Amino acid sequence: MAFDPASLTFDARGLIPAVAQDHATGEVLMMAWMNAEAVARTIETGRVTYWSRSRQAFWVKGESSGHVQRLIELRIDCDRDCLLLLIEQEGPACHTNRRSCFYTALREGEERIVLDPMV
Amino acid sequence: MAFDPASLTFDARGLIPAVAQDHATGEVLMMAWMNAEAVARTIETGRVTYWSRSRQAFWVKGESSGHVQRLIELRIDCDRDCLLLLIEQEGPACHTNRRSCFYTALREGEERIVLDPMV
Repeated sequence: MAFDPASLTFDARGLIPAVAQDHATGEVLMMAWMNAEAVARTIETGRVTYWSRSRQAFWVKGESSGHVQRLIELRIDCDRDCLLLLIEQEGPACHTNRRSCFYTALREGEERIVLDPMV
Repeated sequence: MAFDPASLTFDARGLIPAVAQDHATGEVLMMAWMNAEAVARTIETGRVTYWSRSRQAFWVKGESSGHVQRLIELRIDCDRDCLLLLIEQEGPACHTNRRSCFYTALREGEERIVLDPMV
């Protein structure tokens, strides 16, 4: 049976969280949100497309920056309410120009920046 | 300055998504939710503690199953609205007895189970 994005479990806003992971290195790069249409577009085009909550619009990742995400494989969790995107990331995933958005670590009770922006 | 969980960005329900990743293998194991108190308890005890939305109660992962998660490092994303937990996972993370909750892959337009339950 062909996969139907509507079979996923969306929250009250019609959104599902999607975690993007570098398919080759395993690095977790970012988390953002998709609606059913963003899931469908991502699968159809192979270009990861989120739903921007702030802009209330589709967000083709990298459309303006060039830092695109190519979908290698989409995974669904047991509750069908979270997606894991195995991707190929062009350059930085983060708007701060860092490879990953998760660049702040808690160490000895203090926040430490553990990733530098890419040059 | 000591880290204050209240400095994170919580949603309207007072929750923040937390992605658990095996610190050694890089495998993404699950995603669940925390409130500020769950974040504080996780840091204090080193035992990952979520907030169960269905039970509306703290959920010390593995408390009944023994499949505990030990926090190795907590990371915060650029928007401070998502956490990445680098953990040591005892046994399976998923209630289906699989190592990861993300055991369903979309391949050639069909859903495929790509992880077997652990014995």
